[in-house]
Formats: sequence, structure tokens, C-alpha cells
Amino acid sequence: MSYNTFGHAFRFTTWGESHGPAIGAVVDGCPPGIAITESDLQPFLDQRRPGTSRFTTQRQEPDQVRILSGVFEGRTTGTPISLMIDNVDQRSKDYSDVAKAYRPGHADYAYDAKYGFRDYRGGGRSSARETASRVAAGAVARLVIPEVTITAWVEAIGGDAIDPANFDADEIARNPFFCPDPVAAARWETLVDSARKAGSSLGAVIGCAATGVPAGWGAPLYAKLDAELAAACMGINAVKGVEIGDGFTAATLRGEDNADAMRPGENGPAFLANHAGGIAGGIATGQPITLRVAFKPTASILTPVETIDRSGAATEIMTKGRHDPCVGIRGAPVVAAMVALVLADHKLLHRAQVG
Amino acid sequence: MSYNTFGHAFRFTTWGESHGPAIGAVVDGCPPGIAITESDLQPFLDQRRPGTSRFTTQRQEPDQVRILSGVFEGRTTGTPISLMIDNVDQRSKDYSDVAKAYRPGHADYAYDAKYGFRDYRGGGRSSARETASRVAAGAVARLVIPEVTITAWVEAIGGDAIDPANFDADEIARNPFFCPDPVAAARWETLVDSARKAGSSLGAVIGCAATGVPAGWGAPLYAKLDAELAAACMGINAVKGVEIGDGFTAATLRGEDNADAMRPGENGPAFLANHAGGIAGGIATGQPITLRVAFKPTASILTPVETIDRSGAATEIMTKGRHDPCVGIRGAPVVAAMVALVLADHKLLHRAQVG
Amino acid sequence: MSYNTFGHAFRFTTWGESHGPAIGAVVDGCPPGIAITESDLQPFLDQRRPGTSRFTTQRQEPDQVRILSGVFEGRTTGTPISLMIDNVDQRSKDYSDVAKAYRPGHADYAYDAKYGFRDYRGGGRSSARETASRVAAGAVARLVIPEVTITAWVEAIGGDAIDPANFDADEIARNPFFCPDPVAAARWETLVDSARKAGSSLGAVIGCAATGVPAGWGAPLYAKLDAELAAACMGINAVKGVEIGDGFTAATLRGEDNADAMRPGENGPAFLANHAGGIAGGIATGQPITLRVAFKPTASILTPVETIDRSGAATEIMTKGRHDPCVGIRGAPVVAAMVALVLADHKLLHRAQVG
Amino acid sequence: MSYNTFGHAFRFTTWGESHGPAIGAVVDGCPPGIAITESDLQPFLDQRRPGTSRFTTQRQEPDQVRILSGVFEGRTTGTPISLMIDNVDQRSKDYSDVAKAYRPGHADYAYDAKYGFRDYRGGGRSSARETASRVAAGAVARLVIPEVTITAWVEAIGGDAIDPANFDADEIARNPFFCPDPVAAARWETLVDSARKAGSSLGAVIGCAATGVPAGWGAPLYAKLDAELAAACMGINAVKGVEIGDGFTAATLRGEDNADAMRPGENGPAFLANHAGGIAGGIATGQPITLRVAFKPTASILTPVETIDRSGAATEIMTKGRHDPCVGIRGAPVVAAMVALVLADHKLLHRAQVG
Repeated sequence: MSYNTFGHAFRFTTWGESHGPAIGAVVDGCPPGIAITESDLQPFLDQRRPGTSRFTTQRQEPDQVRILSGVFEGRTTGTPISLMIDNVDQRSKDYSDVAKAYRPGHADYAYDAKYGFRDYRGGGRSSARETASRVAAGAVARLVIPEVTITAWVEAIGGDAIDPANFDADEIARNPFFCPDPVAAARWETLVDSARKAGSSLGAVIGCAATGVPAGWGAPLYAKLDAELAAACMGINAVKGVEIGDGFTAATLRGEDNADAMRPGENGPAFLANHAGGIAGGIATGQPITLRVAFKPTASILTPVETIDRSGAATEIMTKGRHDPCVGIRGAPVVAAMVALVLADHKLLHRAQVG
Repeated sequence: MSYNTFGHAFRFTTWGESHGPAIGAVVDGCPPGIAITESDLQPFLDQRRPGTSRFTTQRQEPDQVRILSGVFEGRTTGTPISLMIDNVDQRSKDYSDVAKAYRPGHADYAYDAKYGFRDYRGGGRSSARETASRVAAGAVARLVIPEVTITAWVEAIGGDAIDPANFDADEIARNPFFCPDPVAAARWETLVDSARKAGSSLGAVIGCAATGVPAGWGAPLYAKLDAELAAACMGINAVKGVEIGDGFTAATLRGEDNADAMRPGENGPAFLANHAGGIAGGIATGQPITLRVAFKPTASILTPVETIDRSGAATEIMTKGRHDPCVGIRGAPVVAAMVALVLADHKLLHRAQVG
Repeated sequence: MSYNTFGHAFRFTTWGESHGPAIGAVVDGCPPGIAITESDLQPFLDQRRPGTSRFTTQRQEPDQVRILSGVFEGRTTGTPISLMIDNVDQRSKDYSDVAKAYRPGHADYAYDAKYGFRDYRGGGRSSARETASRVAAGAVARLVIPEVTITAWVEAIGGDAIDPANFDADEIARNPFFCPDPVAAARWETLVDSARKAGSSLGAVIGCAATGVPAGWGAPLYAKLDAELAAACMGINAVKGVEIGDGFTAATLRGEDNADAMRPGENGPAFLANHAGGIAGGIATGQPITLRVAFKPTASILTPVETIDRSGAATEIMTKGRHDPCVGIRGAPVVAAMVALVLADHKLLHRAQVG
Repeated sequence: MSYNTFGHAFRFTTWGESHGPAIGAVVDGCPPGIAITESDLQPFLDQRRPGTSRFTTQRQEPDQVRILSGVFEGRTTGTPISLMIDNVDQRSKDYSDVAKAYRPGHADYAYDAKYGFRDYRGGGRSSARETASRVAAGAVARLVIPEVTITAWVEAIGGDAIDPANFDADEIARNPFFCPDPVAAARWETLVDSARKAGSSLGAVIGCAATGVPAGWGAPLYAKLDAELAAACMGINAVKGVEIGDGFTAATLRGEDNADAMRPGENGPAFLANHAGGIAGGIATGQPITLRVAFKPTASILTPVETIDRSGAATEIMTKGRHDPCVGIRGAPVVAAMVALVLADHKLLHRAQVG
């Protein structure tokens, strides 16, 4: 019943506040004998890092991950792997206003309602900084599932979507938006810049695909693969919607247009479509697992908003700190990490029950 | 790591196949002293029951629930509550075809891929029949959270949506569609009838609201209330998308249009909007919790579809059994039940940590 | 965090009160494809059954187990297996006294202190009747670990112990005491008879050995095999002590007398001793796993004892119902069942992490 | 299903190898608002510390604990509390022999059998060094249960027991043996000294009592308080037996000598005895919870023992490192820590279900 542990067989627990000395994760249940060094993990953290372009928040964190346990002579021992990332660039003074007032759209009020008080600096534990821990843990997870390839990208910003016809996975790493459509990437440069200058913020939609997942992973009914992917993604800060396969579009289709017919194939069936997004009855079908994740716009905006303070009195708030004009841009590597964590867990779960 | 147990403090485990002698649920962790009889549970099962109108499947099941344990002199004892529902109207002969071939869009192939074989009759455990067990468990959960009111309705069928301006909660019980808009309900009668006669099927979108949830329920980060609601709903058969609050629409808004500003109120803040859907940072804010759930169209359709059989050879399949032209209609009480189960769990979780 | 679910990968949840209509268990996580019928389970229940000799309680229960789900065409499907046993011979009138007063040594007072009230009939859920559900679940577990042989016996009654030199496993089934020493069995007939006539009761020590457990099962540190066996056994009604290997005797030995030296063997090392009882560092070593479990004497005795009633006033209580003069006699099959459940769980856990 | 996480509502996960850079624990589920600083935790670690007398191992570790998260302005925030202890005094060269050969009585062989390889330095994760993490976590747990007083002591070393008539709790802190009997403490000085010089080692029995536990804590059936205490203690390195109340002695008593009769009392009943050790039916009765834990003698001895090496060939091993002549001496604070962790967990569990 841990509030901060995720997973069943391959589990991770994260800890750390935005303005504490460090953040980290303990990864437990990792199979033994897997080759691993910090350089296997660092690239994923670098992807996620703030301050890498003017389009994301300006906090400069090197996000260097250290492995403190669970690895010996370059291989996992099967014992818990403790990962730690020091916080370097906290500017506590930027948050003096929010000690007293609640930022709308953030968890400030909710945390106080639950706990009676909170570490308000930089959003404390509700800060997106915690996602660095998840990305580190996700990097370990990827090593458990070498048969799987996970790709995540930004599909739309502020309602401006890519053109699927232009989709080129190699483009994702070539622009600051994880955008697979170079035409859209150019548009987004303008879009995000103008939002940032206006003190506004934009939402985004992340697309993700996992290929190579064998049919059979997933445990019906309550550890269904799609349910757990939904939880993993909805649990990312600022996420407000998750779709698998055709998602909400499927609700508008007729049955005969939504069926994934099958023909004989070489290794298992050859499917004629993938409306299901690679999951049926909570179990992987062997098809690519596809999902979309909706990020709301960041609430840390630079125009004043009505709110209340801790005493309940009316006040206004305007955050002056360093913030993302579009949180969703960095959501892509986080979504990929969460998908890796869920799939690693399900690989082990399947092995537990079926062998 | 149970595949079939859901929840942390208030847990339930379901069991039973569509064509076995019975289905059931064991509810565990229920607080003691709550007044409960079978008549508290039966109405919710009646709501969900197949065969109650020509618009849903024609299988006739009385779905009478029995309480076998955990209740003494009319009150919960705090020990596990075993609920059982006998299966009465199984027609195994309707499924003789599917023993050999896989129905596209169902979990047939996936189950075989995972387990090597399956109980194919009526979809075995992947059948929506299992949702009766969830509705029974959800009815118990409601008794744990008397302060909360949960309302679920059908918001759209086959892309045809209600008009929010006509929303009347009292209408929900007055038509066979759980539709809060009488004008839409009339349209749907025609829509669903024609789909059924054509041997086709339609998807649907369910809307749900929970009011009276106190600020503070929900446990960041990995038992976040929204993440768990997402898992609970995505785990319902045929669901392909879940949204909280503005959902995917939020991804198109600007930050200043998405903030839920606050003013002083009588009991906690008065919010000026509810884009967040009642949850921030995974914790309830005290506002109504709103969600939308997308159901794909039923794949048990009466027009032939290409598929393969167990040996991998090409074949066609056409199901002749009794099926729903729109599974989503009965998804409404199931969504409500899952929301009740998650909220009951979180009431106890909050109490565990905070008192 | 279920109070009534045990295990990680191979889990079971029991339900049912002593005087309710039935008791049962839901076994979840069982690997698919295992041949199983009710006749695989019934013999273990018959072993445990009350009323099979004048030395145990005189309640007559057929304890016929039914499998309601999770099995198709004679094999497990991998879905939850629901087991049910009807209660037939409840005599509620035997317990009218205890509705008001607390029986010392029982959980009556403790249950009221926790829940505010309880099902007092026959001890409700704290009754040893619940162990029938465990034995049924344990019988399923045995099918998961065919490589393991579990033997349990009574090692001592009321301080009168067997002579290890007379140990003959075949004797266990030949007397009403599960006694492997025929000489001791004869003595115990007299001992238990006289205790029963005197309205007294006796404690017992159960011995158990599991052979064939491969080295490697067990998951350090908090799912250590010995820790989980300890929990499984200490959780049986009336148990007050658990030992692994040399147990408390090891506390009196010198290191050089307690080491399990090794020589080269055919399949892994040949150990020169087994002081450790087959477990080191929480992991099985491949040696027989040996344990001892201490059962206190039954508190349902026929001589009056001072106590209080529900209002807190002083009173006396003398139970007139049908009771065991030695609960430990039937503890042997229950210990064996719990050991099977833990080992099945650990087989799957090991497979999850290591393959 | 985490192998290294313990608890349900109040959970902790430990990490770290004996010769890695650090060890630590993440404590999750701690109620918010509890005053806490590192100086609340350090004394318990100092108690446990090696190198504090010539009677324990000579490794010099300051064991300074740092709190890295979950605390703000001196109070717990309700978010995970990360505790870290640097390893300072590792002497890897002391363990060069054990890289190749298995030390009998240790987990060396078992770890290799499970994982295929292990961090052999100082016993890796199977080292008692890990208990420092538990003691740190236990110190946090004590803050959650201020109503409870936990006392642990050494009751016997090498079969030489204290005299209960001399029991004085204040003596425990006055000698290097946590011994409450000054007469026994003097004897033990000679006993342990001679064992150490002879290169031998001794077992021990730890006694522990927890007073102030309210009646009602404990969750039948599978989170029974006694079962979980048994698991917690049996899971400590070198433990081979656990007793609650009269333990194995109860197995020799008659029912009428083992009943805890009750009379009316001021706050709940006044018990006339405590054979049950404060727990009935898995629930606390309000009486002192008493337990005894048996530690086997340390296997790291200085006389050669027959064993095999990694290739399976016969060899001898003699450990030259710094070792405990009596591990049980330092087991007392570890037992107390585990008891605190279980009780804190059960306080929250009780609150979850009953309020």
C-alpha cells in the first residue's frame, strides 16, 4: 500500500523534493546479471533535463545520476538498485510568494488540505523535478526489456498537430520538441516562443509506441496492461487524458470498422489493423502498443490569477520563477520511461505465472 | 502482486467465468459496523443486467447476489465479505465456433498466447459478465462513502453526443440509455435499433461525476487518485480512453484559460472553474471529480470477419450468440462502481496516513 | 494491504465465518495448464476434518470442497480459482453464553476491542474452521510444486515428545495423531483421552519437512523464505512459536558446532549437516527445509474461568460446545498446507526475477 | 511483491551493500507533521554500531545517518523519507578468500544458486550491515507510535541465561551486552571474551516487550500482528526462532494453566496473566506484547571449515576478517527496531479500517 512505490515484480520507489539536497529512486526486483553503468542511464536524463533550450524551463540542473547499490563488477546483482541525483540549482527565493498563497492548477492547496502543511519550495514533491527519478528508473527498466523498442514524441502543441504523413522517427532527436514532423517543428518554434514571451503556456499531446512486446504480457483483470499504462501515464504531472489505440475515436466507430482482423503470419498472426493499440483484454497481442497522453498547460504562468492564501483570505498570485511554457515537451521522455517501467514489470509478471 | 485483486486498503478480488456455475467477489478491508443487506446491492446489479431492454444483449440473467460472509446481524464485521451471483442462462452451444477460431477485437488470441489455452465459452473470464462482480463490490463500496454521490451517464453513442444544455440528471433513470438528455435519448433509440438490425455495433462515451469528495483524498505519487481512477476505468472491458476534467481538450488550451482560480469560501476555497476535474497533484481538491470514459464498439458482430484458428490457418468467423449492439450503455453503472471502489479505498488510505 | 490475502505471486484470500453458510478461498496467480479436480483437494480436507476420531472436536462437517472457477476441461486456466466449502453442522445454541462474555485465550475480547462487535458464534472468523479454507488452497499449491514433498507430523503433545530414533514417516497416517512414532502414539491415546475427560486441553509441537526445494527459492530481504514461513505458521490459530532448523537450540551452540560444512556433490554441494534447516540468508540451499511449530492448549475448556462480559462486569465462563482437547493434532495438515502455499509462491517469485 | 520492502501502510525499503558507498532506507507512508531531526535517529544507530566494544566486531563505522527528503522545517511532510548512511570502513582485502569459496552458514552459496553471482565483499547484501538501515527506519517508526514503549535485551548468551528475579531494565544500557541482569552481565564478559579468543562464536536469545499498545491493533487473518512480528524477527540475519508470549513452553501447558483470565479494570479488562504475550487471534489485547528471538552463533569463525568453491571443488575456508563473536548482542536494537516498524504499520492499518 505504498503511496510512492510503483509496480509489482519490477518495482521502484522514488523520493526527494524539488529543493531538497537530492532526489532518487530505489529499483527493486531487477533480474540479476544485466550489464549496467551510469552511462546507460545518463542519456535518458539528459533528454529530460531542464535548461537545454530556451523553450523549456531555465533551471540549470546537470542531473548526474549515481548508482549507489545493486551493481557489482558492472552487472546487476538482483538486490535493490539505489539511484541518486543531486539537486544543484535550487533558487528558494523565487518561491517566497507561494509559501503563503496557493497557485491555482497546482497541488499546493490539495497538499495542504491533505497534510496540513507542505514543502512549498518549487512545488516540493509535486514538482516535475521528481520525474527525473522516474526517468532514471525507466532507464534501468529498458535494460530488462531489450526486445522492446519504445519511441515517444510530441504529437501536438496547443492544438497544433503533426501531419502523420510527415512522420519520421529520426526527426524526433533533431529538434527541441521531440517532434517527428519537421514542418510542425518549425511552426512550434514560433508558437512556443510567443507563448513564453506572453507569459502564457501551452498544452501538448504525447504519442508513444512500443514495438517488440510479445503476445501474452499483461495480467487480466486488475493488472491489465492497458490499465497499468493508463495509471502510469495519468500519474505524470499535468496529465489529464490517456488513450490506447484508437482511444476516444473508437467510440465513434462501428464495430466492423474497429475490428483487427487476422491472417496467418510467420510468428503468430498477421493483423490487418491495430485499432486496439496492441492490447486486447488487458494482454498484449504482439502488435505495437500505441498510446496518446494529454498534458494540460502549465499553471505556473506570469499573468496574475485570483486565489486565496493559507488563512483563506483573497489574494492574487503571479509566479516569477523559472517555468516551462510547455511542460509537455519534456513529457515525452517521461512517458517513455513510464512505459518501460510497466513493460519490464509485466515481463516479469508473465514469467512468474506462466514461466 | 495479485492479478485479480484491486485496491489497497479497501480491496476486492473477483472470480468466475462467464459459463461457470457462478461469479463472485470477495471484498476485504471494509470498515465494521456498516448496515448492509442484499437489497442494498441488488438495485445496482439490476441496473447493469443484460436482457432488460431490446437495446442490450438478450441473455437473461437474474443476477441475484448473495452475501455469504462478513456480515452479522445486518452489519459488516470487518471480515471479508463474500458475494456470489449464480450464472443461470449460459448457452454454451452458441460458442461452438469460437472454440476453434479467434474473434478479432476480443481477448481470445491474447489469452491463448498467454496461457496456452482458455475457457472459450462466452469469452470465459474476459467476458463482460465479470463486471457484475465489480458492480456488486462497488455497491458495498458506496456504503463506505455515504458522503459521496456518484452519477454516471452515457454522453455519446456512435459519435452522437448529448447537448450539455439539456442535461437533467433525473432523466438518466428514465430511458434505457442512461441518457441525461431526453432529446438525445430519442435519437439513440433509432440509432441503436438500426445498428442492431444491421448486425453492427456502436461505441460510446460515459461521463461520470463524484461530488462530496473531501479535499485531501488521494495519495501522491503512485497512488494518485486520478491515476487509480484511470486504471480502474481503462480496466473495464472495451475501454480505450480515459479523461479527467478537461482531458484532451486541456491540451489545446492556454494556461490562463485552464487555471482554476480560487476565492474565499465557506468550507475551504470557492473555485471559479473546474478544469482540473476535481483532482490536482493526484489529490482531491473538494471539487466534483469529473471523468469521461471511451468504450469501443463491441467486436461480437454479425458480419463475417477474417481471422485465424488455433492451428494458425486462415478462416472466417461470424458470431451468432447474443450480443450487445452497444456495450457502452451498460458501461455506465460499471464506471460508477469502479469510481466508488477507488474512492472508498482512498478514504481509508487517507485515514491511514493522516488520521 | 489486504488483511486476508496471503502471498505475492501465488495468492489466496479466504472468507467465511464458522457459522455462516459457507467458507471459501480464492486462489489467484496459479499457473495455467495444471490438471486439477476436486478429488485432488478433498483428501487434504479429510485429513483435517473434525469429528474423525474421539480425540478431536465432535462437530461433524463433511467439508466437501467445490471448485467454482478457474478450471476448464480439467486444467487450471490461470484465472482465479474459487473454492467453496459449505458449513453443515453449526450448532449456534452451543454459543449463547459467549455472546455476552469473553472467553479467555480466544480472540473474543480482541475482536470487540478492534471492531466494536463480532460474530460470536463458534468464534466467527477467528475459529479454526477457517483453516479448512487454507487447507483447500494449500492443496492447490501442492500441484504447483510437484517437485517438493511436504511432510508434517505431531512431534509432542503436552510435553510428551516422540523418540527421533523411532521416526517412521509411514506411521503418520496410521494413527489419529499424525504421530511418526508408534510408541508415542500409544502413550498419547491415554494422555489425550484423560485430558478430554477431565475437561482440560493440551498443547502440541508440530514438525514439518519439505524436501526437493531447489536451491535459490526465497527472496532476500523482506520476502525471505524463512520469514514468510514464520509468518505463515505463526498466523495459524493457537500458534505461539516457530523454529527453523535448530531453532532455539542453535542459540545454545557454538559456531563450529552449527556450521553446515559442504563437500562436492552430484547436483550442487553435499552438505555435512543441516543446522540451518535448509535456508540461509532467506534463500533455500537445496537441503530439506525443517521447521517446528508450537501450538498452545485450546482455551475452550470445560472448567470455569474468570472473565468479564461485554458491559465490563465480572463473570465466569464455561464453554459447553464441542471442542478439541488438543488443537495441535489437526494443526499438522494446516502447517503442511501453509508451507505448500509459501513454497508455491516462492517458486513463482524466483521465476519472476531470475527466469 | 517487492523483495525488499516491508510493511503495508508504513513501509520501508532498504538498499545498499556492505562494501558499497552507502546504505539506506526509504520510509514511506509516514504521517505528516511529526517533529523529526537526525538527532532523533542517531542514538539508535549508535546503540547498534559495530566497534563500540571489544565484544563486537572491530569494524569502525560512524554510521551517521542523513535525512535527504520527506522532512521540511523539522516536520515530516508525509512524503517519502530517504535515509542514508555512508560506509566508511570497508576493508575489501579481508574478503579475498570468500570470492572463490562459500562460507558455510552464510548465504554465499544460496545467493550464487539464486542469482548466478554475488557481491561477495563482506557478505554483500546479506551482511548484517544492512540492519543499520532497519534501525534507522525503526527510529522513524518510533516517532509514529509515541504511546508505545519498546524494550529489548539479551536474555541468554550461549545457553547462559539471565535470572528473571534480577531483571532491571535500567541495567540494559549499563553494560556492553544489553543485559538486564548485572550478575549475568559479569559472567558474559568472561564467556564472550573466551569465545572470541578461541576463534569461536556464541548464539543468543533476545527478549523484547512492547507496552502501551492499545487493544485492537492487528488485522486478522493474514496481517495478524503476531505473524508479522514473527516475519520481521525471523527475517533478521542469523535468527532461527521466534516466540510470542509463552512460546514453545505453552505447548507443554494445560489449558487451565494457559488461560489469561480477566477481571473488570479501569480502562478495559484487567488480565490475571499474559501467557498470550499480548496478542490473541492476531489482535493486540492491550497487554504487554512479549517475544523472544533466537540468534544462531555467527558462522564467520576463525577455525577452518570444509567447504566447496565456485567450481564445485573441495576446499577449506577460514575467515580472517573482523567478526562478531556473538551477533546476538547487537540483535537487541535490531529486534526493537523491527518491532517498532511493525507496530507503526499496524497503528495505521487499524486507523485505515476502523478509523
